[in-house]
Amino acid sequence: MLAGKGSTESGLSDEILARVWAANATRLLGDGVPGGDVNRARASLERWEQWFPYWTGRGEAYEALAREALAKGRRKSGGELLWQACLSHHYAQFLWFHDPANREAGQKRKVALYRQAAPLLEPPAERFDIALDGFSIPGYLRVPPHAKGRVPVLMVLGGLESTKEESYLFENRCLARGLATCTFDGPGQGEMFFQTKLRPDFHRFASAVVDWLEKRPDLDTSRLGVIGRSLGGYYAVHSAAHDERFRICIAWGVLFDLSYFPTMKPPSATGFAYVAGRADPQELVNLAGTAERVRVPVYALHGVQDALIPPSQVEKLREALKGNPDVTFDMPADGDHCCHNLYHVVRPRMADWAAERLGGQV
Amino acid sequence: MLAGKGSTESGLSDEILARVWAANATRLLGDGVPGGDVNRARASLERWEQWFPYWTGRGEAYEALAREALAKGRRKSGGELLWQACLSHHYAQFLWFHDPANREAGQKRKVALYRQAAPLLEPPAERFDIALDGFSIPGYLRVPPHAKGRVPVLMVLGGLESTKEESYLFENRCLARGLATCTFDGPGQGEMFFQTKLRPDFHRFASAVVDWLEKRPDLDTSRLGVIGRSLGGYYAVHSAAHDERFRICIAWGVLFDLSYFPTMKPPSATGFAYVAGRADPQELVNLAGTAERVRVPVYALHGVQDALIPPSQVEKLREALKGNPDVTFDMPADGDHCCHNLYHVVRPRMADWAAERLGGQV
Repeated sequence: MLAGKGSTESGLSDEILARVWAANATRLLGDGVPGGDVNRARASLERWEQWFPYWTGRGEAYEALAREALAKGRRKSGGELLWQACLSHHYAQFLWFHDPANREAGQKRKVALYRQAAPLLEPPAERFDIALDGFSIPGYLRVPPHAKGRVPVLMVLGGLESTKEESYLFENRCLARGLATCTFDGPGQGEMFFQTKLRPDFHRFASAVVDWLEKRPDLDTSRLGVIGRSLGGYYAVHSAAHDERFRICIAWGVLFDLSYFPTMKPPSATGFAYVAGRADPQELVNLAGTAERVRVPVYALHGVQDALIPPSQVEKLREALKGNPDVTFDMPADGDHCCHNLYHVVRPRMADWAAERLGGQV
Repeated sequence: MLAGKGSTESGLSDEILARVWAANATRLLGDGVPGGDVNRARASLERWEQWFPYWTGRGEAYEALAREALAKGRRKSGGELLWQACLSHHYAQFLWFHDPANREAGQKRKVALYRQAAPLLEPPAERFDIALDGFSIPGYLRVPPHAKGRVPVLMVLGGLESTKEESYLFENRCLARGLATCTFDGPGQGEMFFQTKLRPDFHRFASAVVDWLEKRPDLDTSRLGVIGRSLGGYYAVHSAAHDERFRICIAWGVLFDLSYFPTMKPPSATGFAYVAGRADPQELVNLAGTAERVRVPVYALHGVQDALIPPSQVEKLREALKGNPDVTFDMPADGDHCCHNLYHVVRPRMADWAAERLGGQV
């Protein structure tokens, strides 16, 4: 799978490593990976093999700093350092499909660290585990502090390579706008991957979480939205199509189907096969005949420079939604995949749109 | 002053540009410059001459986005985008000493944009202008929301190339820990540069601001601290030595005197001469005989890899403070100038130390 082991001073001779940086350099920063770590990695990593150990090392360093802070009673710093450690382990195992043992070990460390960080975050992330079909759906709920009355909720979905642990900074933007946030791992994602792989009925897991949210006295689920990133953009539309309790839907990156799978490159292609547990996952992901059923307001963000998902995917969604009277396509001309390179502009903009529609504060 | 106009794909053939990146790549990120902008600049700028127009362009783009957001009633996004525009113009004129007309225009745009952002920030930054000796000291005060009773205050000082507008993210960390923050421009800094250049009595300006803070019913100035960055590290110790109302002092980067000025390289050397208005500013900056008077707790952060300030400066401060019973030197082995490359670790750590000493919450 590795294209080559040559190295240069710039560290970009390795094909997979170069592709990962090209698609993700600002994504890491936008998600909260420290700039010093990214700069050092870009300057020093020469081969894809070095990726996992480098980020694992960063995770261990932050965990040690977190323990030190907590030993001094520094809860805020301790919580953020545990989250920083979690994020380092996340990016260690990120796209690391060729080495399942390390990938899964990294995934589990990430999960354990976020779980420890959760009660220390501000506001805290409250863990839940919801039973469905013999599975246990793990997730987190965060509720804005100082709220007056019941608050609206935005469900935040991960994608192929993002899980319930990576949206902390985006959640903070939503919380600042008066929205509670709810994340969980669905089939094939994060902790759920060990229970069940990618399935065509993701929506049933989302609906089970909504059932749980409806029982919370602090939430107003008549003002519920869903947002998902990359493959999560597919899950968001798919879930909104199947459950009318979602009053708004945001595709943070459009993915309509996997018809382009045969032309997909590794590590993305490897990743889809990995999380689906089959060589060809095409039939598991398709909005045809489903997206048409979404009648609530839809916001679709898609970078014109997206090098991972072809523009035909956007056209299919646009076509399927043509009967929906309230659809916004936000397509920045210089945006890359999920507009990660414009994170500071598009993430607040999506949070604003959600807050306006759900009765938050902008 | 420019070393050469050659260019390479990596954009690092220009000597000044290479030096600026080497010393500041993570500083920009830590202060809040978007990762996408930094990545694009590093990939595309080939010569130092391109620096100012690039960042001015970013500032104009954010200002336009801010106007758009505000036109839709999006106050939070509008405020942050105005701050983002301000920060872009700040870094446009940053170290741009060879072209005073553009530098000063950039400085003024930055000042105007932050002034517009100030009431929209959360919590807002309240502008003040304090009279002293016929000058008018401009600054901002931010008070933590939801505070019970009077709150402690941390005065945040800029240095050679940082002013009252760049500490927004660091202030947020302090505010989250229950500390109010106060920033202002002293002689030679930001707006004050146009009134008076670097002077040996900076402390009188700091004390005039403390006089003003003492009149605020929401602040507890019996719990007042001061922190300053780089040259501001000098100002912090200098101010604490002259005014006993400062109960703690943090040097975010140690600078004791300018005895190393003859060996200083441009653009730093040019900068000192510029803000001092004289070819040799050495006699204006010296803690000898002054630092000894600081009896309150001192925290000094200094990166062992600092390429701008020699280690002898740290030894001088350590020697001068040897009679002070409560001194902490935090010297990360891998830290660069002001430990900007470790911003995510050292900035919360300094905020924790301040909050612990001033009765905030960690």
